[in-house]
Amino acid sequence: RSGKMAKSTQLIDNEVFRAYATYAAIVLLKMMLMSLITAYYRVTRKAFVNPEDTASFGKGDSAKKYLRIDPDVERVRRGHLNDLENIVPFVGIGLLYALSGPEVSTALLHFRIFTGARILHTFAYLIPLPQPGRGLSWAVGYAVTVSMAYNVLKKVFLL
Amino acid sequence: RSGKMAKSTQLIDNEVFRAYATYAAIVLLKMMLMSLITAYYRVTRKAFVNPEDTASFGKGDSAKKYLRIDPDVERVRRGHLNDLENIVPFVGIGLLYALSGPEVSTALLHFRIFTGARILHTFAYLIPLPQPGRGLSWAVGYAVTVSMAYNVLKKVFLL
Amino acid sequence: RSGKMAKSTQLIDNEVFRAYATYAAIVLLKMMLMSLITAYYRVTRKAFVNPEDTASFGKGDSAKKYLRIDPDVERVRRGHLNDLENIVPFVGIGLLYALSGPEVSTALLHFRIFTGARILHTFAYLIPLPQPGRGLSWAVGYAVTVSMAYNVLKKVFLL
Repeated sequence: RSGKMAKSTQLIDNEVFRAYATYAAIVLLKMMLMSLITAYYRVTRKAFVNPEDTASFGKGDSAKKYLRIDPDVERVRRGHLNDLENIVPFVGIGLLYALSGPEVSTALLHFRIFTGARILHTFAYLIPLPQPGRGLSWAVGYAVTVSMAYNVLKKVFLL
Repeated sequence: RSGKMAKSTQLIDNEVFRAYATYAAIVLLKMMLMSLITAYYRVTRKAFVNPEDTASFGKGDSAKKYLRIDPDVERVRRGHLNDLENIVPFVGIGLLYALSGPEVSTALLHFRIFTGARILHTFAYLIPLPQPGRGLSWAVGYAVTVSMAYNVLKKVFLL
Repeated sequence: RSGKMAKSTQLIDNEVFRAYATYAAIVLLKMMLMSLITAYYRVTRKAFVNPEDTASFGKGDSAKKYLRIDPDVERVRRGHLNDLENIVPFVGIGLLYALSGPEVSTALLHFRIFTGARILHTFAYLIPLPQPGRGLSWAVGYAVTVSMAYNVLKKVFLL
């Protein structure tokens, strides 16, 4: 057992993998934060989608009026879905990239730019900032993930 | 080649990694089950979203009336999206956690509670159970993932 | 450091893992392509969802009319969500499967059929092809992922 543990410790001691683990955890936690922001807006705007969520407001029409669509809630939900569409590929391709033996400095550059871009994207979406703020921050994160995928395919390509 | 195979076998023989692989496969299969439940409700409620899916009901208005929104279908779809928002971070952060060398018993506790909470969450959403059933099962799964992320960051932190 | 690099290189040199990395990168890039197709349809159909995205069309009603739902945009978005629901489980379960030491030929068969099925699924959704084109391509990808999960659980099962 101790030999196996040592092995697993070695992967996590690899500098690139440690950086990957740090940034992947941060962007996944950032994505999870969108659930809390959605819940906050649903409660403060009193805008729910499931009838059982409005039961505490009473029965019948007094509760039904809270089953409604609120623009702030929908905005957070769109930001959350955009995170799923962009952070999930980063986490998957980033793992392959981290295991493909890149330079530590190059890898850190990819991880840092992506993470910064996605945090900016969230602020741009929620404030909201005028375009092209959100569009540019989205494009930067997208380009970083494509760059990592290109590097992975260049090293491992086996169809 | 045999040396490489042996190496890959070693990671999968690590007890924490085996537990991770088991629970990750189970919750991903549970998430995939939502597709089948959606399909079941779409067919039994005759509620479709793509015109080509109603072609077997005839042409024109006789088919168009099945292009409609059904509350049961929408409920399953919300449960599916909630799975994506919560199971994906568990799978990503859980992998990093499993590779960070935790105690087997602590890791099993995290994986078991998360898996149980998400199965409860699905029942709470689909039956549906009165609140706070769904809310609590969601919060438990969320807290487990945050706890794993905290343990990962404590061990690997490298910005 | 060089020992760690060598280790990480060894995993990426494993033939099954190289095949996994190639196909996982391809299907994730394919999923990311849906964002570009959505953007293309939003711009050409002039159908946006965020008020700040229509600011370049002027103020007031002249811009508001472009905040609308377009069937082509919605179709791409459904295809994108379907990718998330199916490609994410493939990437997660596929990683565990690649690490569980399968035969190279069996693994390649799984990865190739899944990737082909999802590319077909995208064409079937966007053209759109008459059913059961989209349904069958979806089912084939689903079955491949279930088969990989079965093989993983058979090898690692530890509850």
